[in-house]
Amino acid sequence: MKRRRAASLGALGENEILARIAPGVALPVDVAVGPGDDCAHLRLRGRDWVWTTDALIEGTHFERDWMTPYQLGRRAYLVNASDIAAMAGRPRFALVALSAPADLAGRDVAALQRGISAAAARDGAVIVGGNLSRGRELAVTISLLGEAPRRPPLRSGARAGDGVYVSGALGDAALGVRLLRGDARARGAAVRRFREPPWRVATAQALARTGLITAMIDLSDGLLEDLARVCRASGVGARIDAGALPVSAAVRKHGVSLALAGGEDYELLCAVPPRKQERLASLSRELGCPMTRIGVFSNAIEGVAVDGLRAELPHSFEHFRRGTRG
Amino acid sequence: MKRRRAASLGALGENEILARIAPGVALPVDVAVGPGDDCAHLRLRGRDWVWTTDALIEGTHFERDWMTPYQLGRRAYLVNASDIAAMAGRPRFALVALSAPADLAGRDVAALQRGISAAAARDGAVIVGGNLSRGRELAVTISLLGEAPRRPPLRSGARAGDGVYVSGALGDAALGVRLLRGDARARGAAVRRFREPPWRVATAQALARTGLITAMIDLSDGLLEDLARVCRASGVGARIDAGALPVSAAVRKHGVSLALAGGEDYELLCAVPPRKQERLASLSRELGCPMTRIGVFSNAIEGVAVDGLRAELPHSFEHFRRGTRG
Repeated sequence: MKRRRAASLGALGENEILARIAPGVALPVDVAVGPGDDCAHLRLRGRDWVWTTDALIEGTHFERDWMTPYQLGRRAYLVNASDIAAMAGRPRFALVALSAPADLAGRDVAALQRGISAAAARDGAVIVGGNLSRGRELAVTISLLGEAPRRPPLRSGARAGDGVYVSGALGDAALGVRLLRGDARARGAAVRRFREPPWRVATAQALARTGLITAMIDLSDGLLEDLARVCRASGVGARIDAGALPVSAAVRKHGVSLALAGGEDYELLCAVPPRKQERLASLSRELGCPMTRIGVFSNAIEGVAVDGLRAELPHSFEHFRRGTRG
Repeated sequence: MKRRRAASLGALGENEILARIAPGVALPVDVAVGPGDDCAHLRLRGRDWVWTTDALIEGTHFERDWMTPYQLGRRAYLVNASDIAAMAGRPRFALVALSAPADLAGRDVAALQRGISAAAARDGAVIVGGNLSRGRELAVTISLLGEAPRRPPLRSGARAGDGVYVSGALGDAALGVRLLRGDARARGAAVRRFREPPWRVATAQALARTGLITAMIDLSDGLLEDLARVCRASGVGARIDAGALPVSAAVRKHGVSLALAGGEDYELLCAVPPRKQERLASLSRELGCPMTRIGVFSNAIEGVAVDGLRAELPHSFEHFRRGTRG
């Protein structure tokens, strides 16, 4: 396992890597959905479960002085709950694998755990175990198991003509990251938004239960990247209108690319057939969660187009690429 | 989250940390066993599951030139399967959270995944999902879900008079680590033993099914440390005979402390009532897995004593302590 220059993760990008490590084995009958969606979907004794894992790693996803340990724990839980929400699940059980430098204060570990527990309590979820290891960098990896509907919304259900909808507002969390990178003491709404991702569990369940959506994903890697995943899985393209994006005044000022490719939003993106868009609007009001139509899925487009300008997928943001956001 | 000198993880040690972050909340009825044992035990719709997570972190648990990516993947799976085995479970589903430096070759990631899959296949288990993040250090965190018996063997069941038994041989893996630290090209049985932990899933299931054991744990942090955990959970002490430890000639030559406190064994430690010890011996022959009596649980001792010499628990090996092995 030497360091090589050719075909490194940095050169290949996350999608290519994930494609190469797709399992070459047949999945057992109780695996309804395996790798490739927001969660695995297990059908255990007639009951449906969704299961995910996500990590926050110091130096990649955060720096230690960007937030308190409590906020880090809450954030680590919420980014996992976002995956469960994208499959319309209800989080129930969490395992926490913590990798921590030996100089981390014991009370910081306790505060981190309280942050996870408090966020989980909102869902009625609990920490049932975990693991503590020493590492050079602080990393919080959570594994979250949730109850699911019989047919969780997948990435693959979008059809040409469906509207592209997103919940909440986009770009603020990425702006928060930019501000924190400039000054770890930065304040304001964008920083707060980065520290506390939205909680969309109830909204996602309502969207799935009412049958208004044909596909859903949570936005973690940026709108263009995650929308492209839905397009690939569904075998359609999408055209979106940059002017329709729900963004704050601050994001508009700093540039709408934050909303297109900044990542860290943890909002929902879903596909809604035209005949259901009025019912969606009324559900959105009921739930108190804004749902904005930003474009349309289409067979006339390959990949994702923004305002007529093609955003080439290979140039989109991925974890392992740097400075080449679409 | 500043770096502090007082009450750091290094100063507190893993047990103290784990005690401080024990959940302060009531667990729901479908959590039969929460934090504190080898796995969480969930009872979902009348079916029993055990669930664990464990991580291998570069710089802490391995260096990249100590083994191939395939071997690393296999090892990452087996250390998790060892937790499932300790609860007499059968691994079924795995999630893989990989943190990797951008300079890691894509084919190394694929080989790592093949190592996990191949090891899982022996149990009939499959990878159902995962996550890939960039990190400065390579870390493989697996979350493993397994089917369990109705009453998995816990750490808390040992009674005074029960024999202390261990499977296989102890100390070789720790010797392997010592050799690799001296020379990453080191070879031989001890190095091989580190690279490939034993597979005790079938043995553990047979031990539980036949009702021969009252408590079980897997040996990951060293015999003294893990035996002390059983003692604490069961409210008993234990006396072991250093001369009875199953060790190879190489371990005997390098020092029996490797078997007492070296860690990395991933063998089973269990408690066996006296009247069942003959049946255990015959089961051990049937399974082709050596089970050695190394001591006895006792109310006359507090903690763990070796050959009459008290091994003080606060001095025993823990992940966050250095150079103070009991």
